[in-house]
Amino acid sequence: MSGLFISFEGPEGAGKSTQLRRLAARLAAGGHPHLLTREPGGTDIGDKLRSLVLDTRSHLTAMTEFLIYSGSRAQLVQEVIRPALGRGELVVCDRYVDSSYAYQGYGRGLDLAQLRAVSAAATGGLMPDLTFLLDIDPETGLARAARVGEPDRIERAGLDFHWRLKRGFLELAAQEPKRFVVLDATRDPDALEADIWAAVSERLSEN
Amino acid sequence: MSGLFISFEGPEGAGKSTQLRRLAARLAAGGHPHLLTREPGGTDIGDKLRSLVLDTRSHLTAMTEFLIYSGSRAQLVQEVIRPALGRGELVVCDRYVDSSYAYQGYGRGLDLAQLRAVSAAATGGLMPDLTFLLDIDPETGLARAARVGEPDRIERAGLDFHWRLKRGFLELAAQEPKRFVVLDATRDPDALEADIWAAVSERLSEN
Repeated sequence: MSGLFISFEGPEGAGKSTQLRRLAARLAAGGHPHLLTREPGGTDIGDKLRSLVLDTRSHLTAMTEFLIYSGSRAQLVQEVIRPALGRGELVVCDRYVDSSYAYQGYGRGLDLAQLRAVSAAATGGLMPDLTFLLDIDPETGLARAARVGEPDRIERAGLDFHWRLKRGFLELAAQEPKRFVVLDATRDPDALEADIWAAVSERLSEN
Repeated sequence: MSGLFISFEGPEGAGKSTQLRRLAARLAAGGHPHLLTREPGGTDIGDKLRSLVLDTRSHLTAMTEFLIYSGSRAQLVQEVIRPALGRGELVVCDRYVDSSYAYQGYGRGLDLAQLRAVSAAATGGLMPDLTFLLDIDPETGLARAARVGEPDRIERAGLDFHWRLKRGFLELAAQEPKRFVVLDATRDPDALEADIWAAVSERLSEN
């Protein structure tokens, strides 16, 4: 496969959507064939599974949720991502396996070795070439996401979960420094966009 | 956990439903607390996932289908099976992991080691104490299931698949002779019922 596979990771409120849009605009302006997709979802069955989880999440075990997302991921990889990479396209994915490791592993306490074994089966071992982690403190991120602005309104349990999430993402990044680019999401969006574009351009020139 | 966990396996047309009903009637008559459930399904989310797969199966990769069923299984084990076993009940399940190994592994060619790793994550390692395999030749089973009666109307590819399924089930049984009871499903239903009841009674007396 000759394409380049890029994922964006980070908690809610980190500004992933903004940066994904900006990267896509740069790729379009540069005439680089690319495909934007997201997890969970990105296929017909994936979108249905996403809705199902969002509708019933409160009743699902962490493992059930993870396995449903893994099913969505298996379909996305085989139906969308691998074919696009095979055509030499650049694939940009909003969340990928790292989100499962952070949310269901570090956040909800599932065994990471098991999550990795399941993910290997789901993806056939396909990992991104480059992953941007938009790092932000939970108080700031959640306030941004909710547009509430009052971190003290976030219940304590929720905040603990989001701190585990943040630490999980950073630990994943530390384990694979070549794949991850960690960015401080509180920086100016234009500066972030420039850093992301610089990293992507470098990989494109190597490819 | 003090309860007894029994699964029924076999292809379509083997007569699982009949024998499940008869076993349940015997358990009820004997005053044994028991719970009947089925895969995929058996929980609210499981039934929704089952419908989703049945609606969209032709578009799903084998791995996607397997992971969705594994999600359904994770919920069933945690929400239904483990609590019932914990209460000392006898749980009878229409299909369990062996069906995944037979259909998605032997039938559709997925790697069995990967399926086992995913299943271990989904079930937390919970396996039946006793598994009845209702064995039947595909020609006979499919004819029974479809009530068509003309095996030559079954397309060749479908028949190959069902032979792989049959051989897969038998191989699984051969690997775990203590757990499996293999029954010739073409025998008289009353005789099958008696054999099943004898095996269950023996385990109940040991328990």
